[in-house]
Amino acid sequence: MFDLKKYFDEKRDQINICLDELLSSSTNSTRIASAMKYSLMAGGKRLRPVLCLASAEAVCGNSDNIIREACALEMIHTYSLIHDDLPSMDNDDLRRGKPTCHIAFDEATAILAGDALLTLAFQILSSPETMSENNSSKHLDIVNRVSVAAGYQGMIQGQMDDIEAEGKQLSFDDLEKLHRLKTGVLIEASVCTGAVLGGAETEKVENLQSYAENIGLAFQVTDDILNVEGDPEIMGKSAGTDMERGKMTYPSLIGIDKSKKLAEKLVNNALDVISHFDHRADPLRSIAQYILHRKR
Amino acid sequence: MFDLKKYFDEKRDQINICLDELLSSSTNSTRIASAMKYSLMAGGKRLRPVLCLASAEAVCGNSDNIIREACALEMIHTYSLIHDDLPSMDNDDLRRGKPTCHIAFDEATAILAGDALLTLAFQILSSPETMSENNSSKHLDIVNRVSVAAGYQGMIQGQMDDIEAEGKQLSFDDLEKLHRLKTGVLIEASVCTGAVLGGAETEKVENLQSYAENIGLAFQVTDDILNVEGDPEIMGKSAGTDMERGKMTYPSLIGIDKSKKLAEKLVNNALDVISHFDHRADPLRSIAQYILHRKR
Repeated sequence: MFDLKKYFDEKRDQINICLDELLSSSTNSTRIASAMKYSLMAGGKRLRPVLCLASAEAVCGNSDNIIREACALEMIHTYSLIHDDLPSMDNDDLRRGKPTCHIAFDEATAILAGDALLTLAFQILSSPETMSENNSSKHLDIVNRVSVAAGYQGMIQGQMDDIEAEGKQLSFDDLEKLHRLKTGVLIEASVCTGAVLGGAETEKVENLQSYAENIGLAFQVTDDILNVEGDPEIMGKSAGTDMERGKMTYPSLIGIDKSKKLAEKLVNNALDVISHFDHRADPLRSIAQYILHRKR
Repeated sequence: MFDLKKYFDEKRDQINICLDELLSSSTNSTRIASAMKYSLMAGGKRLRPVLCLASAEAVCGNSDNIIREACALEMIHTYSLIHDDLPSMDNDDLRRGKPTCHIAFDEATAILAGDALLTLAFQILSSPETMSENNSSKHLDIVNRVSVAAGYQGMIQGQMDDIEAEGKQLSFDDLEKLHRLKTGVLIEASVCTGAVLGGAETEKVENLQSYAENIGLAFQVTDDILNVEGDPEIMGKSAGTDMERGKMTYPSLIGIDKSKKLAEKLVNNALDVISHFDHRADPLRSIAQYILHRKR
């Protein structure tokens, strides 16, 4: 039986140490660096970088060599959270129980800290220090995949769709498209980053991208389910908030039972598409299972 | 006598056509793409992309092959203007006589349009379509230079310094540092992009970077001088606004005569450092001269 908790804890420690180093290596006394660090170290799950590392391992690559690249993905995720929380967007004062960046600092600093994390991610992905061998074409491929995923036809369009969807009735397809863009494409890019840098051939990269697409959607479906029937004590956040905000969710659209069946189907799809991978893909399998059974 | 106006007009046309294509190639009907295009096509001077192209030519490179990369630099410049104009930053309603992005659209859209232009720039710099030959290591070098220049130890720190400097007395060195970060480093990166992609050896890249550092500062000094004694009719914007805002400028710090001498010295430095380049560096020489004598 694969011990996912142990795996996640170990990887998370590695990632946190590396994130800390990446921001401390320079003038970390500036206000902007403090704001970047504040949001980056606010206790995220590190799902994207862990998926990146696990994906490299699944194709027999060395995950220790690509920690910095994995951290770059977490920076892009954090930048998107900082900007999403801004007053002109979701206007959230709290995230993971802590004041959001624009509350802890101020709005201008938060906007710039987000900009800076996005830019630093590309700096890391292209840094001569990040290269372990002569693999610049792979890194350029990653820069391209990540920028497409994070860009105006990916994550940014997802946030636009989310803003425009407020208080509106969406179709099942629209909701799926919104989630795929808002969170799915960056999860896919994270898995592909690990696969490409781990040395996978094209077909395996595609298998892993499909795995990621399915678990990305599954994660969103279970997020919506937990918001209805999760235990606020375990989750560390209130339940029922989506309904209060008039947010479209899978349970509100297709009901709670069909939502659970959908999550199960998506996770099974994810497992199927990597069924021919050997035991080194066990972390990825275990993450898929976890998404289905998570309590927070 | 080199005809700079003709040169600039031709390059600007090429750049504008390419920018238009880069944003039209896809779903340009979305609100986010409209906002990106609105700000990108609002009539900028295109100084950064023209410098990039002129720099490639100065080292005997082909500038036609790197128009897309030059356009990526203009996108980063435009993103920085959109975010600088936001209510929580400089709170400007007008830029070049047109409503700023957050006025023409809304604040959330403006923040995301800025994010999207920054991200698209990296997408273009890493795009397989941008590669004219097998030059991925050069492009990765460019991604790295540009991200360092635009990042939290470059342009973003410059904007932080600018916000913090409001109403404060700065030393000459502080003012120079502020300008170098806020506008200089991206100008340097633009010139280096042209030089590297044009095939320059390291020493010439460094010469051109030094040229760029000098003209970047000279540009800022003459900007400050024009704000004092420029003709609002010719400039298309009001004079005296810096003083009204209590903004630190070179004339307020060292007087108008010393400011003019400083601009002259910086331009001469720029010309000196490329004096061993042949006639193909004439556009760069002419741009340096123009900065000294410009009326707007």
